[in-house]
Amino acid sequence: MSYNVAVVGATGMVGRKFIEVLEERNFPIKTLYLFASKRSEGKTLKFKNCNIIVEELKEENIKNKKIDFALFSAGGDVSKAFAPIFAKYNALVIDNSSAWRMDPEVPLIVPEVNPEDIKDNKGIIANPNCSTIQAVVAIKPLYDKYGIKRIVYSTYQAVSGAGLQGYNDLIQGYEGVSPKKFSYPIAGNIIPHIDVFLDNRYTKEEMKMIDETKKIFHDEDLKITATTARVPVFYGHSESINVELKENFNDINEIFDLYKNTEGIKLKDDIDNLVYPMPVDCAGHDEVYVGRIRRDFSVESGLNLWVVADNIRKGAASNAIEIAEYIIKNK
Amino acid sequence: MSYNVAVVGATGMVGRKFIEVLEERNFPIKTLYLFASKRSEGKTLKFKNCNIIVEELKEENIKNKKIDFALFSAGGDVSKAFAPIFAKYNALVIDNSSAWRMDPEVPLIVPEVNPEDIKDNKGIIANPNCSTIQAVVAIKPLYDKYGIKRIVYSTYQAVSGAGLQGYNDLIQGYEGVSPKKFSYPIAGNIIPHIDVFLDNRYTKEEMKMIDETKKIFHDEDLKITATTARVPVFYGHSESINVELKENFNDINEIFDLYKNTEGIKLKDDIDNLVYPMPVDCAGHDEVYVGRIRRDFSVESGLNLWVVADNIRKGAASNAIEIAEYIIKNK
Repeated sequence: MSYNVAVVGATGMVGRKFIEVLEERNFPIKTLYLFASKRSEGKTLKFKNCNIIVEELKEENIKNKKIDFALFSAGGDVSKAFAPIFAKYNALVIDNSSAWRMDPEVPLIVPEVNPEDIKDNKGIIANPNCSTIQAVVAIKPLYDKYGIKRIVYSTYQAVSGAGLQGYNDLIQGYEGVSPKKFSYPIAGNIIPHIDVFLDNRYTKEEMKMIDETKKIFHDEDLKITATTARVPVFYGHSESINVELKENFNDINEIFDLYKNTEGIKLKDDIDNLVYPMPVDCAGHDEVYVGRIRRDFSVESGLNLWVVADNIRKGAASNAIEIAEYIIKNK
Repeated sequence: MSYNVAVVGATGMVGRKFIEVLEERNFPIKTLYLFASKRSEGKTLKFKNCNIIVEELKEENIKNKKIDFALFSAGGDVSKAFAPIFAKYNALVIDNSSAWRMDPEVPLIVPEVNPEDIKDNKGIIANPNCSTIQAVVAIKPLYDKYGIKRIVYSTYQAVSGAGLQGYNDLIQGYEGVSPKKFSYPIAGNIIPHIDVFLDNRYTKEEMKMIDETKKIFHDEDLKITATTARVPVFYGHSESINVELKENFNDINEIFDLYKNTEGIKLKDDIDNLVYPMPVDCAGHDEVYVGRIRRDFSVESGLNLWVVADNIRKGAASNAIEIAEYIIKNK
């Protein structure tokens, strides 16, 4: 069995990664369709030795293609406008923007965490925010075994999370060129500001982490706070995660054993040999790297974790494709 | 009145900054003496249009100089060996290494926070760790007004904190040269490992932040945890600080008013105009920059802060010199 797949926003950073990961994972594709804005119409992108022509995103280009899966990464406005159109023609949309994530009708999915929610979809499934995905993969085994009282997130997010121009701002920043995507130079700097500021003084990125984590665990009572910052790293978000558990663990080895046996996680914690998760190592991989695991002695049952993942792969393209794979496998 | 001042470790990054800050603040110097290891003997360094010759650090070069203040930044072993010798000849040692910080006989001082402890010195005063200094300056007004239950620190620390070679590792890292100071490339990377690992799985840097904060506030019951990470930034440590207060505040403006009126702090929090603390702005300044102030809704009385300071100035040289200035002023 193979499927007609559309990539929407094909020329962007995540769009290109969709194409690369589809090829790499040998996703069962019948025909691959690429969509972008009118500006990119006619460009060609490579997929398995074929040059595929990018089509303009408009209804008449969608309706007769019998698309099974539409992978979206074209910004919130495009998703709002076009996801329902793809759904109308019986495609299942997996959307990487924030447009649908908090919609109660739309499941927000990380396959290792809440695949059971996929069945509630009405044609649209939302991919969580990059910083949320890796966090919830790391938290899930703790949540299931001990319960979680409270989480404090502090993030160290790569520039590629801001797309091609974010990436270029860092490269060109080293040459003294002023940034175009970021409000300030990011080379040699840390910018504690991702996405817009909200009335409660948090950034939208911080509230995404808080709200999406609660939605994915179906736990409105979960206590969470977050600080998100942009760092001069190309690929790979790092997160300092402080967790207060409901039930205590006996020994830190219990936590190690838990992570050793969790799908989608690569345990990188051998401090004697200086093994811990780092962006340069995780880039190009789909696992979430977990390390620096240690008891937090400031509360009765606390843990500190250091969690790193490739923000464009597991944080975006790979997670979306894993959702599609899960659906195919469990049909 | 003027004083004989010695800089020990004069050729290092902090040593050079001592000389620069002494000149800049017009510290009342009679004679400035520069000491370093035998290797640097005979080198000259500039101070106020004079070329000062670096002398080898040995007792016979110390004993007849009637040194009033000895500013040390030459590593823990040198401090252990030579601070008592300077003290024997009636110099007051202000030491930037970790050698004496946790010694119960040695006060650990940040002038804005616990200047009253200076009087207990027996010839040696310790300068806290760079990451601790800026944190306690930011926490002090909250501690005094509301009391503090618990702190969660996550740091983003500049390479200059690892000295000249740390700095060079970042510069040369962009050209693909392997690091000499750090265990892994720091250009485009985050290394969640500063100083050595301890048996409790924390790094020594993390335990410094925890233990030194408790000592400075004379509060062994303070609950603190910390994660420290090295980031590809030249100057300026950033810290995501989550604080749980003992008493609640009414309104976030109360916290703003508090910081507006605190000596040593520069409030940088005007999110409508994208004003928040960043390393590129704080470099070259002695204040601790505080911003991103917002209520932490996950606990009854919590706050998130983003705190940035120049790690070589306020985090090291300037703090030590401010200690000496305080002593002179309060004689």
